[in-house]
Amino acid sequence: MALVVMKFGGSSVSDLTKIRHVAELIIKKKHSHNKVIVVVSAPGDKTDEILDIVHNITSTPSLRELDMLLSTGEIISISLLSILLNSLGETAVALTGPQAGIIGNNEYTNAKITQINTNNIMTKLKQGNIVIVAGFQALNNLGDITTLGRGGSDLTAVALAATLKVDYCEIYSDVDGIYSVDPRINQNAIKLNIISYDEMLEMASTGAQVLQTRSVLIAKKFNIDIYSKGTFSNDCGTLITDRRNYMESLSISSITSDKDKVQFSITSSDNNAFGLVSKILNKLAQCNINVDMIEQPINNILALTVSKKDMNQTNTELKNVLHKTSNIICRPCITKISVIGIGLRNNTTLLADIFNMLHKNNIEIFMISTSEIRISFIVKESDTEQAINVLHKNLIESKMKIKH
Amino acid sequence: MALVVMKFGGSSVSDLTKIRHVAELIIKKKHSHNKVIVVVSAPGDKTDEILDIVHNITSTPSLRELDMLLSTGEIISISLLSILLNSLGETAVALTGPQAGIIGNNEYTNAKITQINTNNIMTKLKQGNIVIVAGFQALNNLGDITTLGRGGSDLTAVALAATLKVDYCEIYSDVDGIYSVDPRINQNAIKLNIISYDEMLEMASTGAQVLQTRSVLIAKKFNIDIYSKGTFSNDCGTLITDRRNYMESLSISSITSDKDKVQFSITSSDNNAFGLVSKILNKLAQCNINVDMIEQPINNILALTVSKKDMNQTNTELKNVLHKTSNIICRPCITKISVIGIGLRNNTTLLADIFNMLHKNNIEIFMISTSEIRISFIVKESDTEQAINVLHKNLIESKMKIKH
Repeated sequence: MALVVMKFGGSSVSDLTKIRHVAELIIKKKHSHNKVIVVVSAPGDKTDEILDIVHNITSTPSLRELDMLLSTGEIISISLLSILLNSLGETAVALTGPQAGIIGNNEYTNAKITQINTNNIMTKLKQGNIVIVAGFQALNNLGDITTLGRGGSDLTAVALAATLKVDYCEIYSDVDGIYSVDPRINQNAIKLNIISYDEMLEMASTGAQVLQTRSVLIAKKFNIDIYSKGTFSNDCGTLITDRRNYMESLSISSITSDKDKVQFSITSSDNNAFGLVSKILNKLAQCNINVDMIEQPINNILALTVSKKDMNQTNTELKNVLHKTSNIICRPCITKISVIGIGLRNNTTLLADIFNMLHKNNIEIFMISTSEIRISFIVKESDTEQAINVLHKNLIESKMKIKH
Repeated sequence: MALVVMKFGGSSVSDLTKIRHVAELIIKKKHSHNKVIVVVSAPGDKTDEILDIVHNITSTPSLRELDMLLSTGEIISISLLSILLNSLGETAVALTGPQAGIIGNNEYTNAKITQINTNNIMTKLKQGNIVIVAGFQALNNLGDITTLGRGGSDLTAVALAATLKVDYCEIYSDVDGIYSVDPRINQNAIKLNIISYDEMLEMASTGAQVLQTRSVLIAKKFNIDIYSKGTFSNDCGTLITDRRNYMESLSISSITSDKDKVQFSITSSDNNAFGLVSKILNKLAQCNINVDMIEQPINNILALTVSKKDMNQTNTELKNVLHKTSNIICRPCITKISVIGIGLRNNTTLLADIFNMLHKNNIEIFMISTSEIRISFIVKESDTEQAINVLHKNLIESKMKIKH
């Protein structure tokens, strides 16, 4: 008998019809000789609704009470689901985050899970219950309910899966897996059957929003197999795992794009270039501005990208740090495109191929950065779609028969 | 510095405008040198809304989960109110029933408060907080949230008031106090300035719905002054207390009516009348049917009233118990009218007056029962309004200058 965590997102429990469907999936899993722990998010747009009401009161709510208020969404989901399962003849029990033993730190609205006391869950499982746990919430050492930040229900699911050493964890949502490219941008997007934790992490941090980054990190650390599946799809979904052992061969899984970046290029006549770069980075760090990509081309001292929200402050800080002889160029309308896959860094042929493909289509590249499993570069925002489509067609579609 | 409990019902917190008004009342009370504990119900019709959703799933929901679900209503109220008070520069803290130390038994949906651990509330008060407690909910010894039944927020308020030995407890609602008669029936209804616990108990049990009976019982037991006030009224409200020391003189405070009763009259040729009455009462007790009024007139063995919901079962049980020679008359369309006041039982003149007034208006009386502070009688339902108006005019309006 396997032990399984099933997590359902808000869009899967937004009304009674959908909750009934979710209940069917759970019952089917239970009746296939599994012990089942279910993690549920707040129904539909409940969390946003609550935030709207609060913002009609104040833009700076007391965070302890905001967390208490936000936690009601998940409590509604778990009680309704449990009432439904019991009415269908199953034995189910709903547990709030605190009742499930999920302990976190005191960082309201963005708490970290510090510990999970699994006694209550294990007792309820042994009694034959389907155990339904409220996602997104924890108990702090003051006895307050806290929430785990956006995507926190994924975190609850994976943290439970890790602590309980489950056989696998299923994350259900309104998409039926992880795609090679955003299907809203490219209709030829290919659903991946398998992907490594590292690729998934790169995808999450470069714009794909399917799984919360912190939860993938935990899955990787504890080696938990995660299936990303569609609640209303019969597709087998995407397995996120570390078992994929093809680091030697080149294997590109996806193209992502991120429009939330601006680029700054700085030229200076200052002789002490190294000192100036260090000064700039220290200043930006002081202001809590995250530098995403950074490059030192020959003609400039520095090129870097930051989030759009930090654009104005970055501009101000750069002006403060730099001499008047320095020249600052800000490019607000750019996109970061990333090619993600196994074994990319040392593959110069691929890098050359990418340059050629883009050049042939008159797409200019402003910056480039590479990691073990990612090649990212900056293009003009207006080139986004074309760049994605060209790369997807040549790097993924043309090889899909081999890879998938 | 006084210690005060203020309780606000659902209609007082049904939208942000109303919650703002409630916050003003609380701030005013705090700034008048009071330590303030606030108890709040779920907003507006939230509880009914939740029950509607559940009844779309099943008519027999798992009660543990139903209580968990119901408890979210009050949690929403307390968080919003606390966020608002904090945004207005006050220091306020919201506590769920469990966080406030309210411990109850395991009777889901109708739990009894067994204990209140006031440590957390006292600590928060000492830190200068306005302490906002979720009404209607408790924690049981399994770590589950339970609810206290209809009107349970009154109970939370009065139980807290009793345990914390507050100076007084204010119960705010959409009516500005206790009236001599239902203002929807009689426009000349007089708002009472003061009323005793016993009169209030009689009123509550004879049809007036302003305060929950269990909470009045606790207030009486612990001698807590309760003010029934209107949230949106400047009236001083009604003080419910035991200080009113005029047991010697006749003082009528109110007329109530209760249409939720049916009357059964039984005649039998059985010689062992006493044995039969005992048999009937035992049978009804077995079936959990509460007998409200009971009488043994000369010609009949027995007349009794029960709640309308028990009518059919009572009829069946009576037929089972009685011989075929017995005759059972059921009067479904009756009203119980009660005259409530201090020193009624031994006042035969009043009883005669009531008979005369009703007789003069051709209103027939079917049954009568008296207690220390109440005279109740059954009339035809069609006579309800006229009976109330005649009695109110002669017994209350005509004496209002003397009494109030």
